[in-house]
Amino acid sequence: MKILVAQSGGPTAVINASLAGVIKRAKMLNHEVIGGLYGIEGILESKLVNLKIEDEDIHLLENTPGAYLGSCRYNLPEPPNQIYDHFFDVINSNKIDAFLYIGGNDSMDSVAKISREVKRRKLLLFTGGIPKTIDNDLVETDHCPGFPSAAKFINVLASEFVLDSNAYSKPSICVMEIMGRDSGWLTESVKLSEEVIDGLNVISYIPERAISEAQILDEVASKKGTVLVAVSEGIRNKDGKYFSAVEIKDAFGHPKLGGAGERVASIIEKIGKVKFVNPSFLQRSASHIVSEVDLREAKMVGNDAVDALENGKSGFFVSIERNVGNVYSSKTRIIPIEGIGNKIKTVPQDFNDQKLMAYLKPLIGELPKYARRKF
Amino acid sequence: MKILVAQSGGPTAVINASLAGVIKRAKMLNHEVIGGLYGIEGILESKLVNLKIEDEDIHLLENTPGAYLGSCRYNLPEPPNQIYDHFFDVINSNKIDAFLYIGGNDSMDSVAKISREVKRRKLLLFTGGIPKTIDNDLVETDHCPGFPSAAKFINVLASEFVLDSNAYSKPSICVMEIMGRDSGWLTESVKLSEEVIDGLNVISYIPERAISEAQILDEVASKKGTVLVAVSEGIRNKDGKYFSAVEIKDAFGHPKLGGAGERVASIIEKIGKVKFVNPSFLQRSASHIVSEVDLREAKMVGNDAVDALENGKSGFFVSIERNVGNVYSSKTRIIPIEGIGNKIKTVPQDFNDQKLMAYLKPLIGELPKYARRKF
Repeated sequence: MKILVAQSGGPTAVINASLAGVIKRAKMLNHEVIGGLYGIEGILESKLVNLKIEDEDIHLLENTPGAYLGSCRYNLPEPPNQIYDHFFDVINSNKIDAFLYIGGNDSMDSVAKISREVKRRKLLLFTGGIPKTIDNDLVETDHCPGFPSAAKFINVLASEFVLDSNAYSKPSICVMEIMGRDSGWLTESVKLSEEVIDGLNVISYIPERAISEAQILDEVASKKGTVLVAVSEGIRNKDGKYFSAVEIKDAFGHPKLGGAGERVASIIEKIGKVKFVNPSFLQRSASHIVSEVDLREAKMVGNDAVDALENGKSGFFVSIERNVGNVYSSKTRIIPIEGIGNKIKTVPQDFNDQKLMAYLKPLIGELPKYARRKF
Repeated sequence: MKILVAQSGGPTAVINASLAGVIKRAKMLNHEVIGGLYGIEGILESKLVNLKIEDEDIHLLENTPGAYLGSCRYNLPEPPNQIYDHFFDVINSNKIDAFLYIGGNDSMDSVAKISREVKRRKLLLFTGGIPKTIDNDLVETDHCPGFPSAAKFINVLASEFVLDSNAYSKPSICVMEIMGRDSGWLTESVKLSEEVIDGLNVISYIPERAISEAQILDEVASKKGTVLVAVSEGIRNKDGKYFSAVEIKDAFGHPKLGGAGERVASIIEKIGKVKFVNPSFLQRSASHIVSEVDLREAKMVGNDAVDALENGKSGFFVSIERNVGNVYSSKTRIIPIEGIGNKIKTVPQDFNDQKLMAYLKPLIGELPKYARRKF
């Protein structure tokens, strides 16, 4: 079998581990693997390469951030559209038997559209979608590869940030902007840091809950002890507008992208000293501190996608299922790709701190421990 | 002997390792250790605590970021001044025999001033200064504990940032702001990443070299391949004014601190797509990825400060000396504290890339390796 694999959307710390999983398993089963460069955008330009990667390089690949094959932000249009003629021309002229796409919401939607066209045109192309997103917002999967590692890194940064601020006799209120346009999983995860640092209060503002200036001031003022405010970039006010949309411009008149965290910081400055950080792009590629579970599962979804092809499956999505039991373990489930794309799994309203911790802890693993002040 | 130890200035990833070194050695020699909270500022308010830390806590302390005892930004005034009466009152009423201060330029200046007053007043107080600064700008020492770990973290972030950006078919010019008001050691260190990522060009702007908009545009435009621009927060224009001082204000009219990196990013946007990150406070407390050499030396300077007291030394500074030889090793040298404080060791003009690499590599150690694209 000749398998075309490509990557799409924002990189994660483990997106290349999923690619490595595909290559390794395909090699074992004597399948050929072709890399599509820069996602579907590159495939449409026939940017394909042979992926013959040595064993030692596979190991490096598993631990390399970014997207090794290159990525794109491109969503296929609704069929019918002549773009699909073009796409299948590339597939046919390269004698591709199967197409695996590693990505998030938009990418899974693209896989579903291609699968539908394959059926309609009665073509022989096997298709599958492999999940990846630090946003953790794909439906029909317990969680998404990339999220646990990003959450681990964000928590470590949050703790280090707070301990840095606490060095002074008058500690600042710490504000951190965190990625997430539509869901607040990553921001909510910062509550794990409350267990790491004595007396830490984490206040989270996420896209799922509308926010107002008065509410921010009330909540921050009500907290005793150390306060860390975790702000999703995509928070909105009660009118549904991005909270950052109240124009923040720099001195050169450029409107600033994001800015939700900066706006929250600027509000809190009315009642106290504030320190603000925005790890920005850094949070999605921190391969130096991946979650072990995440790394293992990222490889697993790649591996199991190849197995699904081997078993004659097509039009599938590789979902992660959490096994029942006291010790965390997981397996994949091969389910239809239809209905996965273009949906957003938000943080449920009834997800209290207890549920959140039970969900997060096994995924993220041990966080560093610090000496506690006894005075 | 009753030793008072305190911490001062901005935290580092290993400032607590130096404290641990003091406590461990003092315990071994049966000395008592008193912690001064929040540096000299807290000592003047008699904020002293007994430091009886168990062995397992010492290990945690070595790996805890921030300043465990608390820190301050406070420089003692020129003597004579009644603040010294106050200081020595606290020393005497607590029967302190020795004072060790872990800090940077200002802190070493404070130790020198106290030492002078001790002599003038013919008091019996032994004094010593222990180096600490991510800025690496203390004179009379090969380097400063805290710098190698910060440099390691900054390089790892820089590589991950660039690989994230390179995921796209049209990669952005990456701009990163890096701490350093008066010296560019940390910013210069990012050149190490050129060896980690194929085709990467690092352009550095540091306080030691005046900068202009035209020069930035010329230099960036002249580079082929991937470009990462590392910008010290303290860069200045040819008039000696901070480059960030061309007012950057947010939409709320607040002048923004720093902003040098953002200004450089905004200039480069005239010729290409730019991604900007500012790790800010995060870069000085990343204990999760310390340099092994740095951690070891941070403990060593604490340990050897106690040994110096044991040997009857006073008014000293614990300098780090690099041993001659192919394999890196170092030792401390106990030298006079006079002339250490309030000086700045800048990056020498003749420090070409070769000299820089030879200086940095042993301090920072191995950086992560990544899979290289062969297409």
